[in-house]
Amino acid sequence: MAPRGYLKFIQADGFDINYTGSEANVCVSLCSFGLAADFVTKLPKNDISAACLATMRKFGVGVDKIVYGGDRLGSYYLERGASQRPSKVIYDRKYSSISMAGPADFDWDTIFADAGWFHFTGINPALGGEMARISLDACKAARQSGLTVSCDLNYRKNLWSTEEAREIMPELVRRCDLLIGNEEDAEKCLGLSPEGTDVVAGRLNREGYAKLAATISERFEIPQVAFTLRTSRSASDNNWAGMLYSGGNAYFSKAYDIHMVDRVGGGDSFSAGLIYALVQGYDPQEAIEFAVAASCLKQTMEYDFNLATAEDVRQLMGGDGSGRVQR
Amino acid sequence: MAPRGYLKFIQADGFDINYTGSEANVCVSLCSFGLAADFVTKLPKNDISAACLATMRKFGVGVDKIVYGGDRLGSYYLERGASQRPSKVIYDRKYSSISMAGPADFDWDTIFADAGWFHFTGINPALGGEMARISLDACKAARQSGLTVSCDLNYRKNLWSTEEAREIMPELVRRCDLLIGNEEDAEKCLGLSPEGTDVVAGRLNREGYAKLAATISERFEIPQVAFTLRTSRSASDNNWAGMLYSGGNAYFSKAYDIHMVDRVGGGDSFSAGLIYALVQGYDPQEAIEFAVAASCLKQTMEYDFNLATAEDVRQLMGGDGSGRVQR
Amino acid sequence: MAPRGYLKFIQADGFDINYTGSEANVCVSLCSFGLAADFVTKLPKNDISAACLATMRKFGVGVDKIVYGGDRLGSYYLERGASQRPSKVIYDRKYSSISMAGPADFDWDTIFADAGWFHFTGINPALGGEMARISLDACKAARQSGLTVSCDLNYRKNLWSTEEAREIMPELVRRCDLLIGNEEDAEKCLGLSPEGTDVVAGRLNREGYAKLAATISERFEIPQVAFTLRTSRSASDNNWAGMLYSGGNAYFSKAYDIHMVDRVGGGDSFSAGLIYALVQGYDPQEAIEFAVAASCLKQTMEYDFNLATAEDVRQLMGGDGSGRVQR
Amino acid sequence: MAPRGYLKFIQADGFDINYTGSEANVCVSLCSFGLAADFVTKLPKNDISAACLATMRKFGVGVDKIVYGGDRLGSYYLERGASQRPSKVIYDRKYSSISMAGPADFDWDTIFADAGWFHFTGINPALGGEMARISLDACKAARQSGLTVSCDLNYRKNLWSTEEAREIMPELVRRCDLLIGNEEDAEKCLGLSPEGTDVVAGRLNREGYAKLAATISERFEIPQVAFTLRTSRSASDNNWAGMLYSGGNAYFSKAYDIHMVDRVGGGDSFSAGLIYALVQGYDPQEAIEFAVAASCLKQTMEYDFNLATAEDVRQLMGGDGSGRVQR
Amino acid sequence: MAPRGYLKFIQADGFDINYTGSEANVCVSLCSFGLAADFVTKLPKNDISAACLATMRKFGVGVDKIVYGGDRLGSYYLERGASQRPSKVIYDRKYSSISMAGPADFDWDTIFADAGWFHFTGINPALGGEMARISLDACKAARQSGLTVSCDLNYRKNLWSTEEAREIMPELVRRCDLLIGNEEDAEKCLGLSPEGTDVVAGRLNREGYAKLAATISERFEIPQVAFTLRTSRSASDNNWAGMLYSGGNAYFSKAYDIHMVDRVGGGDSFSAGLIYALVQGYDPQEAIEFAVAASCLKQTMEYDFNLATAEDVRQLMGGDGSGRVQR
Amino acid sequence: MAPRGYLKFIQADGFDINYTGSEANVCVSLCSFGLAADFVTKLPKNDISAACLATMRKFGVGVDKIVYGGDRLGSYYLERGASQRPSKVIYDRKYSSISMAGPADFDWDTIFADAGWFHFTGINPALGGEMARISLDACKAARQSGLTVSCDLNYRKNLWSTEEAREIMPELVRRCDLLIGNEEDAEKCLGLSPEGTDVVAGRLNREGYAKLAATISERFEIPQVAFTLRTSRSASDNNWAGMLYSGGNAYFSKAYDIHMVDRVGGGDSFSAGLIYALVQGYDPQEAIEFAVAASCLKQTMEYDFNLATAEDVRQLMGGDGSGRVQR
Repeated sequence: MAPRGYLKFIQADGFDINYTGSEANVCVSLCSFGLAADFVTKLPKNDISAACLATMRKFGVGVDKIVYGGDRLGSYYLERGASQRPSKVIYDRKYSSISMAGPADFDWDTIFADAGWFHFTGINPALGGEMARISLDACKAARQSGLTVSCDLNYRKNLWSTEEAREIMPELVRRCDLLIGNEEDAEKCLGLSPEGTDVVAGRLNREGYAKLAATISERFEIPQVAFTLRTSRSASDNNWAGMLYSGGNAYFSKAYDIHMVDRVGGGDSFSAGLIYALVQGYDPQEAIEFAVAASCLKQTMEYDFNLATAEDVRQLMGGDGSGRVQR
Repeated sequence: MAPRGYLKFIQADGFDINYTGSEANVCVSLCSFGLAADFVTKLPKNDISAACLATMRKFGVGVDKIVYGGDRLGSYYLERGASQRPSKVIYDRKYSSISMAGPADFDWDTIFADAGWFHFTGINPALGGEMARISLDACKAARQSGLTVSCDLNYRKNLWSTEEAREIMPELVRRCDLLIGNEEDAEKCLGLSPEGTDVVAGRLNREGYAKLAATISERFEIPQVAFTLRTSRSASDNNWAGMLYSGGNAYFSKAYDIHMVDRVGGGDSFSAGLIYALVQGYDPQEAIEFAVAASCLKQTMEYDFNLATAEDVRQLMGGDGSGRVQR
Repeated sequence: MAPRGYLKFIQADGFDINYTGSEANVCVSLCSFGLAADFVTKLPKNDISAACLATMRKFGVGVDKIVYGGDRLGSYYLERGASQRPSKVIYDRKYSSISMAGPADFDWDTIFADAGWFHFTGINPALGGEMARISLDACKAARQSGLTVSCDLNYRKNLWSTEEAREIMPELVRRCDLLIGNEEDAEKCLGLSPEGTDVVAGRLNREGYAKLAATISERFEIPQVAFTLRTSRSASDNNWAGMLYSGGNAYFSKAYDIHMVDRVGGGDSFSAGLIYALVQGYDPQEAIEFAVAASCLKQTMEYDFNLATAEDVRQLMGGDGSGRVQR
Repeated sequence: MAPRGYLKFIQADGFDINYTGSEANVCVSLCSFGLAADFVTKLPKNDISAACLATMRKFGVGVDKIVYGGDRLGSYYLERGASQRPSKVIYDRKYSSISMAGPADFDWDTIFADAGWFHFTGINPALGGEMARISLDACKAARQSGLTVSCDLNYRKNLWSTEEAREIMPELVRRCDLLIGNEEDAEKCLGLSPEGTDVVAGRLNREGYAKLAATISERFEIPQVAFTLRTSRSASDNNWAGMLYSGGNAYFSKAYDIHMVDRVGGGDSFSAGLIYALVQGYDPQEAIEFAVAASCLKQTMEYDFNLATAEDVRQLMGGDGSGRVQR
Repeated sequence: MAPRGYLKFIQADGFDINYTGSEANVCVSLCSFGLAADFVTKLPKNDISAACLATMRKFGVGVDKIVYGGDRLGSYYLERGASQRPSKVIYDRKYSSISMAGPADFDWDTIFADAGWFHFTGINPALGGEMARISLDACKAARQSGLTVSCDLNYRKNLWSTEEAREIMPELVRRCDLLIGNEEDAEKCLGLSPEGTDVVAGRLNREGYAKLAATISERFEIPQVAFTLRTSRSASDNNWAGMLYSGGNAYFSKAYDIHMVDRVGGGDSFSAGLIYALVQGYDPQEAIEFAVAASCLKQTMEYDFNLATAEDVRQLMGGDGSGRVQR
Repeated sequence: MAPRGYLKFIQADGFDINYTGSEANVCVSLCSFGLAADFVTKLPKNDISAACLATMRKFGVGVDKIVYGGDRLGSYYLERGASQRPSKVIYDRKYSSISMAGPADFDWDTIFADAGWFHFTGINPALGGEMARISLDACKAARQSGLTVSCDLNYRKNLWSTEEAREIMPELVRRCDLLIGNEEDAEKCLGLSPEGTDVVAGRLNREGYAKLAATISERFEIPQVAFTLRTSRSASDNNWAGMLYSGGNAYFSKAYDIHMVDRVGGGDSFSAGLIYALVQGYDPQEAIEFAVAASCLKQTMEYDFNLATAEDVRQLMGGDGSGRVQR
């Protein structure tokens, strides 16, 4: 729920609503690229959940594996920032159906039947209750069923502390084939950070990222590690790039100066772009270029979903970022 | 949070937001009439609560006695009905700061210092946790401090069962100087109902209401009992009247055929109208006419607040319901 | 300037704007019927006036006779009522360019060259300053140039007192060929009222209106007198009819039960309908039917303009008020 | 495409858009009731069609049987009327992909595999080109595949003439198991009309309808014939009922006085309600009550879709049309 | 028709509508500068056309020379891009009244009576049917009547192929006094391109443009040739300048870094600026500065029209592009 | 009153409304920082003023010292510019209640009881009538009551001439403890300007400002003089900094490149920031950093109020202008 445009909460007499979430965003983007994806979560049984399902269906996402029960749909309030003013997020996720779910709610073997990839983010275990346990169950079952497992670290300081994250995330990370994050995630979840980088000051050090990825890959036995490289000059203007560490080498994408429409969902669209590219068998350089171009496009769209098609992304990858009218 | 106009939840991509609540609505109406009123509740400490406070201040309501803590601002989703389609309310009030408050949160002696009237509704004890206990504490303290105490029964089936209500409400009602409700409230909270009335079919029996009020007055030792008399021909058209039982007599107001703009808050504005009239020393007939005219006007306004002035109400009481342009 | 829908001023964070006015509304309606009409007024020279002119042009109204100067475009704030709640108008017309105009601003002989009809309303002299004098000048010049002159009394209690109106209006009325008004106008401007009518209580007496028209016709030597007959059951539902006194006979139209969309401009659209019908040579019964059907349609439209075509009006006159979809 | 609220086309600077159509509306309503339904049509291959598909998917409608090609998505402009002012529809359906489709576009045997019911409306053959032929092909194939076939006559005077309709519709009607329409449809498409009915004047004659249904049933060998019975007092207020002729008897539903929110889609929701009820095995009286209650609810919702659940409909059928808030 | 803000088609539930078109935009801009202009086209006779006419009238454009007939008003859907995401245009212009017009529809001698300038764009012949023939008729008649003729090449790849354009445009260009375009237009319509320019990569070569203009001037015997010089760094930020080749010399304007509000209509406002400047007798350097400043201002406005006054343009030409508040 | 977004007046059919004003803006910002502030003015007694009061109360501003009378609430129309297009302001402030106030309207001794600071701007004396006299009375009374007095010069060319300003402002300035302005204000009100600065061309000379402040401080005996330093590259992008001259030294703040959301109120938020910092006892460097950071944040918000908290400002002062999402 977000006030229109750049209004502050106190100025708003209405909220734009979007039924989103990190994993939902990844699903929508994958479906926009033409893949099939199912969203798995737990929702209360009411008309608000029904509206949420309708949104998923609208964008082609499968909803048949969602389970029902509990009291609330977790939500959050977003105040969009601009220029030097940061966006603010107020979570109202406590006591949500998913955060109070139990291991028995999900029958992972059935859920993973016929699936090829399992993606989750660090927000899930951060929700507390038995969600860390449930996440671990899912990872184990996914690997057993032969799925590729990817995790976006997605550290959220308003959901849990560094100590909690560092206790739980390594166990999950260890079961992944692909790890995605940024410098803050790595530091908060894994206690590792790139040398020579200061994102508030706008300095990113490529060497540091490559070394960090190598360390993570080795320590947690993950074949592929990807980083988003964001330099936030202001809430309105960001420089955006990415790196994929694969087969012992670090592949850096081209960087984009983005005049931001909506930043939220940028990371999720990067994950979706990367998953799509790897599923399609792109080589590492192409894969990271696709993921970064995809997430660049997301940040030129309103709201959290990346609705770009694979062809839209390839056009930008191919070098046309001039934004000339297509007619 | 409510979709614009008559949209259903599934059709909406935005919600109008209003910071309301039964007691808050009474406060706003009293301030619009020119009285001073303070809203007492417990809120989480965040920017959404700050927006809520700003709304209260905007309409002149005192906010200095609100206490802070807990996780959530209780909320609900409203889908406005029309004609044969009923409005729907989905509560998301569980785990709200107020519902999880404890008796120590409120220092009633300080809160009631300098106050003359204490009004609460049956929604408070219905929130569960220790709210029944807190409500009782408040009633006792109010009476001890010499305040007039009024209660609007306000039964909500989605918050508690008839059994729970009937166990708790009588204790509270017994400490009131003025009881407000409708036929459903009396039945669900007190186990008493007017004879010969069937609101779904649109039949109200005046005699039955008078007898019911006498019974309540006697059984619970309450000097004044008021009923709203709504005949809902459809969500769009209601007939609206009221009755005040006082000094052993039943006073019926004139009835209004209302083409509804927004029904929510109708009962609250009736309570506020009645409190205002009694504070001003109106006689019972004038008091019930004022309360009904006030709540008639509310139902011609958007959203939950009655923003009519006392003069607006007196003009309608005086007989001009023609709605001719004032210019 | 009016808050959206039924919002009260205090609830609004935006105003719908419309560049209107009694005479402007008549012009727009006449142009929608297919006649040519020029709007004559005085406006300040700024971008807000330019937007006003653009609106007139949009609907086909001639703007070449408008004169420029002074400080302000007169404006007003409208709060739309509903059901028992009346609409409120707050004028901010003082010191407007037109209210501070002088007789030298308008060269009536030039203005009336090639014109056939001059229509004005009682709002003009009510604006004060030299507007009464200017109105009288215009009437005299119009008659001298052989134009038909019509006047809508349009009494506005927030602009002037009964005493002022009764001093000034008779002189103007005496120069008219057609007088238009309602029972309140006649009483406030001319000191004459229909017997047996109480509009607040919703009682209209046909005989009384016929006699009143005869009296006015005789006393002020006006061949034709027309009344709108509104019974305002509420701001949402009105009964609407009209009467034309012509050639010594009173012709009453059929009456319409209107579920109101926007009442403002109802009288103006009646004037325009009557002028059109008389210009077209309709007989008195047809003329009053056309005028009333036209103004009935206006009240089913948003904002002040009647955008019905002559064909739309004739279809309603012809008996089809069923509102069935045309497809 | 429709201006917001009651604005006329000339006043609008934006259109609300809805991806609808008579058959699409039936699909959405059936899916809201919990049945599975597929929408079959031909669309151009572009982003506007993609948005149309997304809407269908959102409400659960299957889109896999849609074929692609041609230049245009047919569209229309809707100006919502109120009170005495009728709604206006301007069609821009010429040269649409579906209107220029050919018989080879649809492989009916594949389309009907696993289906149980085929519903179409008279709008399809009215689109011209080869659409009459295609409609006939579909009817024949449906019957051969053992589907139940229903047709809503849906006569549109802006699409074809009475002569054209009467030449084509009988052939189609003859292949139906259920025929749906109103008095105008029967007259324009089949040359038959109920005695003693004048819808513009608001008179419906029950006997006439029963006899008309019997005549149709016999002449075209259709076991079941249903009529909607609308008395349009104004665009804002309608009386709404229905009749089902089945097994030689006429079953009339209860009638509803509806304060209209949006009339468009009323007939489609009646068809969907009837199909659902018959699929569920309701007896004729229950079936017509369900269909009429369903379409009553539709007309209290914005836009063309009936989003009521089967439970919502049964609640209204059960007698609660009071529109009281559910909370 | 365009979704609000930066929404994609699939996200929109409403479209902003604007009645525009390349030649209409030129007319509106000329009228905003204070010149008189008539828009000549063919429209269907319906209420949507009426709304289109009203828009033209609103901005002062003459509509008396428009002819009526046919089925459709051509339209298009616009999805506004941002940053690296390009705007998308989906045409729905096929079968429009103008595209199916015939030579007999326009009596050019009457149309051109009293006119001084004829401007058209390459979109007209691109519409197909007899529009190339009609365009040629118009050019011939205009020259015969002594009008100055200007053409904006305006190549649209979705309307016709390079081959078609190159076959038809030279015949039209040969009859012009002023040719306007950009590097893509010249290449696609005339088969000529500036050396050393790559607009996707953001490189413009001034020398190349001067030589290209000289070649065109000579080959097609056109005294004046103008180019817009756009470097599109992204959909949000463009560099904008222009060149006028006149009397054998190339005059380059100053360049503006524009933070784009709405790009559409940029070229049209350049044409209008140039026509105005030449009509006013500006020298070539002043003329190109005026045209570029005018079109710079357009791109800071919402929607397709340039509503800047000649004074606004001269203020920017004079050097004040600081955008400081005027108060 | 301002059209939505970047629309021009002529394009708007609605205005966003904000109840603002230079001094009101300062009050709101101070209250957002946590200080108490009262707004003193004169308003007419009507519902529009009531809405204005409600806005002040909403943001915590005291309204008990406002006096009532006169005819109008002064207003203005704002057209938001973008890029090279400047914002336009059309004043409609003539004859407002405050501009026609008399010295007897304000009892300064009562108003200043318990106050610690008096702030006013040059707009007040510019309103004409007796406002210069009233301003002087206020300054004298404030100093006598021991308040700190600050003045923001705020020259408005549409309200008065340089000659008028230079005659009146020096007398007021002489009674201030803190003077705030920019280079244009100083030149227009005091006849003094910084050397080497040309704001239209975007050149600011720090030395010149320091010398100018010293001159003003000495000549008018003001201990502290502050300047805002704005380089307006375009309406969309500004560079913003400030200088505080205090104790004989000039303290320059860091500069911010702001991508503007709404420029209006920038100067007022600077004043409020400076007042807050000085009240809190910040040293001069900290004070000017706080004032500039505060007003930087204002310009990233919609509408005229700075709703940043003191903590928000300190976070930006502390170096984080990266605008990263806070979650």
